[in-house]
Amino acid sequence: MRIDAALLERRLDDLYAIGAEPGGGSYRPLYGDAWATACELVTGWMRAAGLEVRRDAVGNIWGRVEGGTGKAVITGSHIDTVRHGGRLDGALGITAGLTALKSLIEARGKPKRPLELLVVCEEEGSRFATNFWGSRAIIGAIKPREADTVTDAEGVTLARAMRERGLDPENISSAARDDLGAFVELHIEQGRILETERVPLAVVTTIAGAVHLEVIVTGRPDHAGTTPMDLRRDALTGAAAMIQAVESIAAALGRPAVATVGKLRVEPDQVNVIPGRVTFTVDLRHEGLSGRRALEEHIRSLCGTIASERGLSIEIRTLHERPPVPMDGEVRRVLERAATETGTPPAALVSGAGHDAQVLAARCAVGMLFVPSIGGRSHCPEETTDPAHLALGTQVLARALELLAY
Amino acid sequence: MRIDAALLERRLDDLYAIGAEPGGGSYRPLYGDAWATACELVTGWMRAAGLEVRRDAVGNIWGRVEGGTGKAVITGSHIDTVRHGGRLDGALGITAGLTALKSLIEARGKPKRPLELLVVCEEEGSRFATNFWGSRAIIGAIKPREADTVTDAEGVTLARAMRERGLDPENISSAARDDLGAFVELHIEQGRILETERVPLAVVTTIAGAVHLEVIVTGRPDHAGTTPMDLRRDALTGAAAMIQAVESIAAALGRPAVATVGKLRVEPDQVNVIPGRVTFTVDLRHEGLSGRRALEEHIRSLCGTIASERGLSIEIRTLHERPPVPMDGEVRRVLERAATETGTPPAALVSGAGHDAQVLAARCAVGMLFVPSIGGRSHCPEETTDPAHLALGTQVLARALELLAY
Repeated sequence: MRIDAALLERRLDDLYAIGAEPGGGSYRPLYGDAWATACELVTGWMRAAGLEVRRDAVGNIWGRVEGGTGKAVITGSHIDTVRHGGRLDGALGITAGLTALKSLIEARGKPKRPLELLVVCEEEGSRFATNFWGSRAIIGAIKPREADTVTDAEGVTLARAMRERGLDPENISSAARDDLGAFVELHIEQGRILETERVPLAVVTTIAGAVHLEVIVTGRPDHAGTTPMDLRRDALTGAAAMIQAVESIAAALGRPAVATVGKLRVEPDQVNVIPGRVTFTVDLRHEGLSGRRALEEHIRSLCGTIASERGLSIEIRTLHERPPVPMDGEVRRVLERAATETGTPPAALVSGAGHDAQVLAARCAVGMLFVPSIGGRSHCPEETTDPAHLALGTQVLARALELLAY
Repeated sequence: MRIDAALLERRLDDLYAIGAEPGGGSYRPLYGDAWATACELVTGWMRAAGLEVRRDAVGNIWGRVEGGTGKAVITGSHIDTVRHGGRLDGALGITAGLTALKSLIEARGKPKRPLELLVVCEEEGSRFATNFWGSRAIIGAIKPREADTVTDAEGVTLARAMRERGLDPENISSAARDDLGAFVELHIEQGRILETERVPLAVVTTIAGAVHLEVIVTGRPDHAGTTPMDLRRDALTGAAAMIQAVESIAAALGRPAVATVGKLRVEPDQVNVIPGRVTFTVDLRHEGLSGRRALEEHIRSLCGTIASERGLSIEIRTLHERPPVPMDGEVRRVLERAATETGTPPAALVSGAGHDAQVLAARCAVGMLFVPSIGGRSHCPEETTDPAHLALGTQVLARALELLAY
């Protein structure tokens, strides 16, 4: 079975051109004009490939090839992007999925199980302060009135944005499906592990959910000139020791544990005043729930010790918590077999980033394939992957879908 | 010689009431309404005490008692405040100086050298991005056109603000004096050394000028979930190591060396993105210029090493640099003698904060007396000193002026 790598590249270019921003990259926020244009373009491609296309209540697009009995085998990705988004995030899963389906239909005809391409309406959370909107609708996890309460930066509710696209918020529950068998997605790694290890393909073992903590360190704001070092209660030097501890603990655990202090605010933030208060966030991810809990516990405990040794007070709040989601064992084996048959034994990788698969796992067997990101760059115009790796990933995806649906 | 401690307290209350802010404390910015009201009040007190009062070209107020020949002996302080300023900063030097002069004139009559109270128009730099405006005018150090180029937050130039108070910016150079003999100021410590060491009085040895550095640390902004700890170039963990180094180096040198990271900004400052750039300030102070240079050199060198070990780039700029100013040896001996005669052998202290004396040192012999700040609090409504210490400081100031002028 051959896949059309040149068409794949052209379609990636065509999608990337929609929502192009002056500062570089593309932006296709949920229910925006660029989003709608992209949906139309992809719908046309799907129809041309012979798929039966429909749009569900939240705007996910489904393209189906009827097969024998049984639950459907799905591939696809999301069509929305972050601001200044790159050419591949989401777009690859859609275009590669469509390329793979087209090759399969041409080579093998009607499948034994229904085969579908899923274009998820939203995954990034860029316009509205919610993400996984599309996949949550599919598993029936949208909260009642959620569309009325969530607004974008201009104060537009999700419900109003839906109506402007001809979607009825009252119908959201109709998007839920219970006839999904498996979901397989090809995605870029968005990190540098594959590149540094010179492996062109990985099968994801787990999507590591993140815990986000907010740490508030309170000391005493004093005059920077008149307060000797030994009489200070400096919230920032204390926070600096904690940031070092966060880094050391995660580094000592080794891959795939990560811990990141990404946001930090100093008060009063004046050149000649000793900081009285520092607020920072910690993003923690690890493969399993018990490992992540241990990582969090270590960090909480060491930060507490540092605070008490320095006469600082500390408060730690959990802002956000999402559990790690293991990929389905059977789907992983299929992906590994497909890769190995294609001549490329894959690496096994934990996904540090979130993906729709972690939500869809509540309703079906999920699996993911990663191809390398050059320089690990993602969510930016520099997001690129060697075309040979894109073609390889698409080839392996096609074979895996064949193994699952034929 | 007795000083009127009750009158001192009442006058501190009267001054503190001018410019009282809803959020607590007082604000008397240069050339503002509260500033003008306070100048009028103090002028009245000075006239009532028998001083010959005049206002110079920038609005400094001088009250003089003619004496014999020779250069004048001066005491006083500044009348402007920071936002939410306390009751004592600046106000103490004015009211205590006036109280001391009144007692001296009553007890000893006409001095052998002219004796003056100086009410400095501006020291804090709160309204305009310049400080030591008043004392710089006295030493003839105002730059040509400076009044036209410096503006407040509303865009009002210093020159326009002067004209609104009936002062002519064309005359600034007339404020310069070359007939000053000695300047002695009583001030609160604004730190906690005297309180923790239970000493009620200090003679200042040096005013430690500050160096302000800006450090820019550049790494690589990467995805917090997909970038393993060992592949990161995190600007914030690097900056945290540098902040620890800044603290350790100053602490190891011991008093009076201080080093403070007061401002810090993270980019992009997102919970799930590894910081790509961190910009922070370092405020460095030490007793002598060579000690301070060594402190700065240690910090620059260690920050550079930390950056290179972590694959980060670093840029360090000097934002501001003011040399340490030693107090005059003869004036220090007079202050020590006056304190000891009053029954209180004083501590010797480096002033970490800046004061007009460091500017006036260019034209005359300067010296300063410190009384304790309760809890080290200053530049805030909590700024207080035991009334017994205020009275003691005023008593010692009066005796020192007597030794200098009679």
